[in-house]
Amino acid sequence: MTSPTMRTMTLCAPGGIPMVREGDDLCRIILQAIQDGGDCLQDGDVLVLAQKIVSKAEGRTVPLASVVASPRAVELAEQVNKDPRLVELVLAESASVLRHRRDVLIVEHRLGFVMANAGIDMSNVQQQATEDTALLLPLDPDKSCATLREELRLACGVDVGVIINDSHGRAWRNGTVGVAIGVAGLPALDDRRGMPDLFGRPLKVTEVGLADELASAASVLMGQADEACPVVLIRGLATPRRSGTARELIRPKQLDLFR
Amino acid sequence: MTSPTMRTMTLCAPGGIPMVREGDDLCRIILQAIQDGGDCLQDGDVLVLAQKIVSKAEGRTVPLASVVASPRAVELAEQVNKDPRLVELVLAESASVLRHRRDVLIVEHRLGFVMANAGIDMSNVQQQATEDTALLLPLDPDKSCATLREELRLACGVDVGVIINDSHGRAWRNGTVGVAIGVAGLPALDDRRGMPDLFGRPLKVTEVGLADELASAASVLMGQADEACPVVLIRGLATPRRSGTARELIRPKQLDLFR
Repeated sequence: MTSPTMRTMTLCAPGGIPMVREGDDLCRIILQAIQDGGDCLQDGDVLVLAQKIVSKAEGRTVPLASVVASPRAVELAEQVNKDPRLVELVLAESASVLRHRRDVLIVEHRLGFVMANAGIDMSNVQQQATEDTALLLPLDPDKSCATLREELRLACGVDVGVIINDSHGRAWRNGTVGVAIGVAGLPALDDRRGMPDLFGRPLKVTEVGLADELASAASVLMGQADEACPVVLIRGLATPRRSGTARELIRPKQLDLFR
Repeated sequence: MTSPTMRTMTLCAPGGIPMVREGDDLCRIILQAIQDGGDCLQDGDVLVLAQKIVSKAEGRTVPLASVVASPRAVELAEQVNKDPRLVELVLAESASVLRHRRDVLIVEHRLGFVMANAGIDMSNVQQQATEDTALLLPLDPDKSCATLREELRLACGVDVGVIINDSHGRAWRNGTVGVAIGVAGLPALDDRRGMPDLFGRPLKVTEVGLADELASAASVLMGQADEACPVVLIRGLATPRRSGTARELIRPKQLDLFR
């Protein structure tokens, strides 16, 4: 797998990352895990972080006992068969409800993402015996990525890309896939319009959701259950040319034919 | 990147794959390219093939001059600003038209995929000076994958997964991403329902579009323009447990809230 005639991209998930808690220093934790794995960050690397560890570090946990469900949340909770307090949190995190029926609640998140339950879930959140806890998305995932990218630059002098990924369902297709909800240091959307194809004919419309593709790739290695691989290091991408944001990936409502 | 505490997945795109033509033996071409790159296939590897080389090998090119546009195609072509003969081919490959407007034609492909232009395009198809040519999707991509997987088993005694990927647009999000339109030798949809999370709480609903995530990962390395990397070898996945199909990834119409 090392011949110069092979283009190669490698994804590594360092082991031994501890359970993340509010206030933890993700920069330090990640660098330690990579070092313990016998590696170090290089210019052009892309780090993909699972949304959950960023949310936990930023203290985005909410004890359900602290939530008072509004009448609207109670009514909707009945229709979708969910805890009214969870629905209250979903509504508070959302700009609008797009679809709902039993067991399904699809919203436009305040950040613009169309997703189930505003990205709030209860898995892999430490549960007190007497108290259920929900975990919200980071307040501003693009900013979280930019901040971590800067911390890594200061700590190691490296220029890396950072992605926060989450698992989203899709219209039309079964199964969740990793998508980028935060991006810094690489283009989220790679505009290849105008590039020639193999026969020199200009490609008409080819904008590639590069950060989403990388988020999906990392998701394979992360697993989603009890595997505890919340960070993936991707090496071998062509050097990032510009720093984008996950907001680039959100289709403006007026251009969206499927809402 | 080689420490035992690192979980690793490697993607390699062997160079030197020649321009594929109708009747070409993809099994031989791929094995030669991997060998020229100094590697060989191993049990558990997953090969991702760009749709275009499979379609070309299967002779799915159509000279537009041979197509007679029906009145319906002529009318629709006017609305979507496309060649009526191309629209005729799109309609012939589709079960229904979902959305259309200027420059946009979203259909349900006869294979079940919701996609633009029935996956037909004109880029990276050799153009005669006097004749435009369109390239259709493979007739039965799942079968193409199963056949290649069997050929590889006979040629090398290896048990590998095979995916055919294509670039699809999405509802709600900008940019195309690689998705699986054919699968053999690995689960397309990885059902993790019932697995415990980090705290032992059973995950409620987690079906992962594994083949789509791998298709996206490979797409990063393939590029989409003049880079000529139509085959990607993925190594380091947990051993595939069952052989699925891309049809698993298609949400049944009656369960789809966004058509």
